Parts: sequence; C-alpha cells; structure tokens
Amino acid sequence: MTTHYSKLEEINKRIHRFSHLGAILSWDEAVNMPKGSGEARAESISELYAFISDEMKRPEILEYIDKAKNEDLSELQKANLELVERDWKNSNVLDTDFVRKKSLTNMKCEQAWRQYREENDWESFRPHLEDVVTLIKEEAALRSDATGMNKYDSLLDLYEPGLRSSEVDEIFNVLIKELPTLRNEIVEFQTSRPFTKPEGPFAAENQKELGVEIMNAMGFDFTRGRLDVSHHPFCGGVPEDVRMTTRYSEDDFTESLMGIIHETGHARYEQNLPVDWITQPLGQSKGMAIHEGQSLFFEMQMGRSKEFLQYALPLMKKHVFNGKSEESWTEENMTRLYQHVTPGYIRVDADEVTYPFHVILRYEIERDILEGKIEVKDLPEIWDAKMQEYLGLSTKGNYKDGVMQDVHWPSGAMGYFPTYTLGAMVAAQVFDTLEKSNPNVKSEIATGEFGNINSWLKENVWGHGSRYELQDLMQKVTGQKLSADIFIKHLKNRYLS
Amino acid sequence: MTTHYSKLEEINKRIHRFSHLGAILSWDEAVNMPKGSGEARAESISELYAFISDEMKRPEILEYIDKAKNEDLSELQKANLELVERDWKNSNVLDTDFVRKKSLTNMKCEQAWRQYREENDWESFRPHLEDVVTLIKEEAALRSDATGMNKYDSLLDLYEPGLRSSEVDEIFNVLIKELPTLRNEIVEFQTSRPFTKPEGPFAAENQKELGVEIMNAMGFDFTRGRLDVSHHPFCGGVPEDVRMTTRYSEDDFTESLMGIIHETGHARYEQNLPVDWITQPLGQSKGMAIHEGQSLFFEMQMGRSKEFLQYALPLMKKHVFNGKSEESWTEENMTRLYQHVTPGYIRVDADEVTYPFHVILRYEIERDILEGKIEVKDLPEIWDAKMQEYLGLSTKGNYKDGVMQDVHWPSGAMGYFPTYTLGAMVAAQVFDTLEKSNPNVKSEIATGEFGNINSWLKENVWGHGSRYELQDLMQKVTGQKLSADIFIKHLKNRYLS
Repeated sequence: MTTHYSKLEEINKRIHRFSHLGAILSWDEAVNMPKGSGEARAESISELYAFISDEMKRPEILEYIDKAKNEDLSELQKANLELVERDWKNSNVLDTDFVRKKSLTNMKCEQAWRQYREENDWESFRPHLEDVVTLIKEEAALRSDATGMNKYDSLLDLYEPGLRSSEVDEIFNVLIKELPTLRNEIVEFQTSRPFTKPEGPFAAENQKELGVEIMNAMGFDFTRGRLDVSHHPFCGGVPEDVRMTTRYSEDDFTESLMGIIHETGHARYEQNLPVDWITQPLGQSKGMAIHEGQSLFFEMQMGRSKEFLQYALPLMKKHVFNGKSEESWTEENMTRLYQHVTPGYIRVDADEVTYPFHVILRYEIERDILEGKIEVKDLPEIWDAKMQEYLGLSTKGNYKDGVMQDVHWPSGAMGYFPTYTLGAMVAAQVFDTLEKSNPNVKSEIATGEFGNINSWLKENVWGHGSRYELQDLMQKVTGQKLSADIFIKHLKNRYLS
Repeated sequence: MTTHYSKLEEINKRIHRFSHLGAILSWDEAVNMPKGSGEARAESISELYAFISDEMKRPEILEYIDKAKNEDLSELQKANLELVERDWKNSNVLDTDFVRKKSLTNMKCEQAWRQYREENDWESFRPHLEDVVTLIKEEAALRSDATGMNKYDSLLDLYEPGLRSSEVDEIFNVLIKELPTLRNEIVEFQTSRPFTKPEGPFAAENQKELGVEIMNAMGFDFTRGRLDVSHHPFCGGVPEDVRMTTRYSEDDFTESLMGIIHETGHARYEQNLPVDWITQPLGQSKGMAIHEGQSLFFEMQMGRSKEFLQYALPLMKKHVFNGKSEESWTEENMTRLYQHVTPGYIRVDADEVTYPFHVILRYEIERDILEGKIEVKDLPEIWDAKMQEYLGLSTKGNYKDGVMQDVHWPSGAMGYFPTYTLGAMVAAQVFDTLEKSNPNVKSEIATGEFGNINSWLKENVWGHGSRYELQDLMQKVTGQKLSADIFIKHLKNRYLS
C-alpha cells in the first residue's frame, strides 16, 4: 500500500537526485571550470536550484505531511517527517524567481571574487557584493516574517537548525572575556619555545602523496571520494561521492597537510551518514557547527596534538623530506610549529587560540549589515578597525587578506561564520568525552590507529544523520549542552603545560 | 510583445541549461568519478534525463509551434522552428519512464563495461549488454512506428538527421568494392618504405605539453575548455565549456598526439557554433557525420599529412624527445609511421584505409541485431568471423580487443558507427574544396598557421550550427553530395605516390 509517508519519501528521493547534480557541478566549478565558462554555468545551476525549489514547494507535500502524521510510523520515520516539514516550510519562504535570481547573483559574485581577490581590487568587487547583500537582506526579512525569529537567527537557523544568536552570544562572550588574557599568557609562554620551519620547496605531488597516505589511515574511502585542488579548500560533493579539495604552497607543506586533515573530518562525517536514509532529510548531515566539530576534531584535537605528530613525522620524512633544515624534522619541533600561537590576517590559517576572533569579527559585521547599521562600502574600514581591536593587525589597503579573503559572503552565506567557532567547542567537548570512554585514545593516535575513534564517532555522531539538533546531540553524546568551558580547558592544557 | 515563437525560445533556453548539467556530469563520470559512486550517479543523471524528456514533451510546445508558424519570422527563426518541431516529435516517441529506465540501464552497462573490459570478461558483461539491447530494440520499434522509417534508419536519423541507410549502403558498397585491392597495393607499396618507432618511455606530462601546444596552435580556446584523461577519449561538455579527453601510453606518444588532434577537430566545431543561437536547437552541432568530418579533417587530412609532420617534428623534439632511437626523429620517418597502413584490432587506432572495415563490420552487426537476426550471445563469434573476413585477424577469446572494445553499444548507441566513416568522406571532400579555394593550405599547415583554415571552416561549416542537413551542407560547401570518390582519390594520392 502506498502511504502518504512513502509518497513523501519518493519526492525526497527525487530531490536528492537533483541535489546530487548541483553538488558535483559546484565542485566542478571550483576545481575544473575554465574562466570563460562561468556565465553559462551560473545560468544552468541557477535553473537547477530554481527547479529544486519548485519541487520542494509542491503544495501536495503539505497535504501528504498532514496525512502522514496519522499513519503508523517508526521513530525514525517520525523524525524524518519532521525534517520534511521543516524543509517544506523553509522552501516556501522564497518564491522561485527569487531563488533563481539569488543563485545567479551569488555565482556571478563568487566568480568575480576569484578574479578581483587575486588583483586586490575591492572597488571592482564591491558592486557584486552589494548585489548579493541586497538579496541576503531581502531573504532575511522574508524569513524573519515567516518564522518570527530575528533576521540574523532566521539565517543562522539554516546553517545550524535550532541554534539562536542568544546562545552564540553567551559562548562568544566567554571567549571575549577569557581569550585575550589566555592568548597573552600563551604567547609569553611560547617565547621560550622556539621552532624552525622546514625549508622548501616541496613539490605539490609529494605533498599530495603525504596527504593521501594520512587520509587513507584516517579512513577516507577513495572508492567514494576524491582529493583535488581548488582556490579555497572545501569538502563538497555528495555522501556517495565526496569531493575534497586543498591547495598546495610549494614553500610550506604543513598548511596543506592540516587543511587535508581538516577536510577529512568533514568527509568522514559525510561518508558515514546512515546509508539507509541517504536519500532522505534524516540521512543528511546536520548543521554546520556539528560538521565543523568533526573537521576540527580531526585537525585541532587530533592533527595538531603531539601524539599525532609522533605518528606523522615518519610519513613527512618519507614523502616530503628534502634534506634541508634537518633540525626542523623532529617531533618536538613539529609540535611547536603546529601549536604556535600568533595573530595573523587569514582565518583559515589561524591557530585555535586566535581563530575565534576572526569569527567574532565577522559575526559582528554580519549582524550589523542585516540590521542595516553598516553598508558594504564601509566594510574595509570596519574590518581594519576590528582587526586592530581583536588581533592588533591592520588590513588597510590589503583587501585580499582582509575583507575579501573568504568565499562566504561572495557566495551569499551570512549566518554561517559562528558555526566555525562553535565547531571548535563541539570538537573539544566530544574529544573530552571520547577520552573518558577510551583512555587509550592518545596512544592510538600516536600509532596511527584511527579505527576505534572512527567507530566511536560513527556510533555517537555521524550515524545519526540529521536526527538531533546541536544542543540535543551534545547533551546525548557529552552529557551537557555546548559550552566554552572544555574548549578553554583544552587550550590551557595544550598551550600552557 | 511575447510571441509564441519567443515562448519556444524560452523553453529551449531552459532545456539547454539542464542539458548543460547532464553534459558536464557525464564528463565527470568518465574522468573523475570514483568507482563506488556509480549507482548514485546513474540514478541522478537518469532522473535529469527523464525530467528533460518531460520538458521537451510539454503539450503546449506543439500549440506554440503551430501558432509560431503564422508569426513573422526571419529565415533563421524559421529554421530554428523546424528543429524545435523535430525535437518535439522525437521526444514524444518515448514515454518518460522508458527514458529513465533506458538512461539507468545504459549507465549501469557502461560502468560494467569499464570493469569487465579490463578483465576481458565477456560472460559477466553480457547480461548488461542484453538489457541495453532489449531497450534499443524497443526504442527502434517505437521510433519506426512513429516515423515510418525502418528500424535502423529511425536510430541513424537521431545521429545524422535526414540520412538513410540506403545512402550509407551506396557509399559503403563502393568502399567494399574498392578498398581491399587498394589496401593490398598500399601494403605492397609500403614494404619498401620501412620506418622505426620512437622508443619510450614518454612521460604523460610531456605528452600533454606537446598536445596542449598543438591545441593552442590549432585554435582550441582554453578559456572555454579543458583537456583531461579518460578511459575512452572523447570530446564532451557543452559549447561554452568543451571537455576534451585523451589517454596516454608511456610507450608511445604518437597515439595520444593524433587522438588529441582528432578531438581538437570536434572541439573547434563546438567552440565555433553560432553564439547568438547557442541556447537554441539551431545553435547546436548538426549530426555526427559532420562532427566526425571535423575531427577527421583535423586528424587525417591535416594531422597525418607530411606537411603537418614538418611543422610538428620540432615540437615533438621540444617536448618528448628523449635521445633514444635518434634515427626515428625525422620528418620522413614520422610521416611513414603516421601513414602506415596495417590491419589491427582496435578501431580507434586504425589507419584511414582499414578503418572503414571496422565500421562496416559494426554496421552490419547492428542492423542484424535490430532486425532480430542475431542475438547478443552470438556476438563474439560473429565479430571474430567478420574480422577474419574483412581484416584477416581473429579475435577469438580476445573480447577486450574485439566486441568489448567500444563504449557505444554499452552506452546504448546503435546507428552511430556509420557516421565515423561518412565523416572520413566529409573530411576528404571538404579539404579538397578548401584546397581549391586556397592553394596555400598545405604550406600553411607546414608552418603551423591554422588561422585561415579555421576561418574558412567557421564560415562554411561550423558557424551554420544545425541549419543544414548533411547532404545539403555538402552540396552547399563542396558543390556535390557526399560520395566516396574524393576520399578514394585522397587515399591514392597519399599512399601510392
């Protein structure tokens, strides 16, 4: 018998198929697409997203949802049905022409960003960003009207369902209070711990070999995924075909290595979503704070630990050692290098102590933009002022490493940045729980044994797909809601002892 | 005022956008996709093609066509309208469930082919091919009923609109009559013209540099296209983003080089379609015989000529010369090598004298399959018998280099093969005309000057898009319909003097 619930599953399966096309095409755009093909691609992807939006808004979906609620459903089916209803409501806020226009505008802006960032050309880029921001503000107003949330929360909720900026503020306020002093103590502490950087050049292909060996050890499934190069590293594609990217600097292999480990955390989550639910909302990854929690678990909790560097050093020697600066190639030196705390311009290269300020700066700016307090034209000046305030650095005239450094705003994503720092809290809190349940975890890392860790994460986090909202998942896994405490404890342990 | 004609243009523009997605995704499948992702990809692409089929069958299209016929249209608009009507009719032959099933079956078979061909495993591959052939036969029956053409013609017409197998027979009969004797004469003639093959290894990256330099010289636009590696070389993507592939053998750079030149011919056609019509049927490339005419113009008429090798030899020396077998690296030797006639197993590696028999063999088998005279299980035996008859070679037990060598049948394409050999006639006939209008063409090739040749092809062939059917185009460009005469004259000139 065809139930209304099963009709909804069919509709979602079809939407999943079409989303697959968009995900791989977006990866292709970042990795392969020649520059001159951008307009045709933007038109095509926008047409696809408009179509998907139409499909998600089909009025019969609401009818099926209402009828399915009276059908005999398992717990998982009920959870899936709730997510279907959420998707239906979220989709219906924007009409299809708006979706098409937004997609086209974002893609054009992102293409412009790639070019003008390289050229450090803010003035040519600005009108593109203004177009994008106009639509984000329009979207936030529509979503706010539809949901009763404030404008910022109405966007934040898309990236981390259920999370509110009041919760973000609570955590960020702890960080703003605690971190500056802690950072000064760490910087002071580290003055007596000098290190040297391995001297390049390191051929990209050797760096890739190193990355691939570690990805394999960490469980990345290359039969359902790839590693390529893009301008801005990301983990894209679909759970059935995960497309990870990185970028190689021939001067320095250490950056791409941690980038790869970071993205491998994202990838492992995607590759371990519940396979029986993969075409349904329940089978998708949850919000971006949880997602970032996985990548930072891999990069920060594991990858930058002294135990991991004990495991990785022989692999570094095997793949990229070039006989230069021999004194750098020790566990102690590599640990100091990977744990070095220093303010810098670039968010993705920041250490975990200064990183939160990169996020807080963006979060404050986003909120002010959405509330109409500041305009796009003012961004370079505001960025510079906040960088000076939080990190003591000026980005005056340096747009490339300032306001133009990230792909998020050009691609239309506002409300996303806080999830990075919340992810750092997630990672610290989850690792702390894992360590309590498995006291050998650090010695497993030191020997490159990631099997138990992966199994535990799959059972406790990855395998739930979208079933639990962030705070419920944290409560379930760690016994408490998300907080900054364990993260700060982790920083003190790692950097001051 | 919105005319009915302009409504049709809007519908076709949208279809063009969705086709873009499918074309790039298909390229990705052949070039990038990890093996374990095949099922999800096949499901997604099949859903896309089912959707496109639905869009092309929308009943209002017929209404708009009828009304547009009474609107005031330019000649080009009228030509476009005819093509829109043709597409509408062709689409309506197959219902959407059939399209989805066919796409899924073909993709699964193609994925199986990639694996089992490598393993020379006919028995595991056979059931997949049987599924594909069942659907091809069903499709041919439906198309035959709808159009009144015979079954084979109803498929041939999809690949080369307007062409009938009676015309193919007429040309192929000339070839069957003339070529065996000519081939024997050439083989005899060439016994006194020995050559040596440059000795490898030749690193893939050096071969690629050589190929890219020649692609650039021949006008390939890398701002709207790429060159990558795949199992079976092809030219895919979309006119706005042409995705060419090749494969490199480290033993032998000469194969990949001619493969690249061949695909560059396809690519130049795609990149020079009429840009104002690119989203409409009129702006697409015409049939595959014309398309293959362009690739063989590049490979056979130009690439394997002694003038081209005069131009290319210094480039070969620059990129791939390895100091070995120095006596091979002369114009005379390379010309002999590239013009060597000898029967072989593999169609794509065949010289232009024996190539037609590879096609005739497949053409005869396809027709017998569609007419129900032979079944898939009999193919290896029939293949072997025909190879012995036409080329004096046995493929007994060698499925990999026999019936399993081509991607066409596994991917559901029957009625396609004849276009290759007709393309050879197109190339010879068009080159002959060009040479009459520009007697310097060979010296331009010898100096690597392809500008005039490209301009002439753009004006006379490429820029027409889909406006003219094969025979009309040949009449218009060369002053006569397609025939084997000029091709045979070309063979005699090149190989017996």
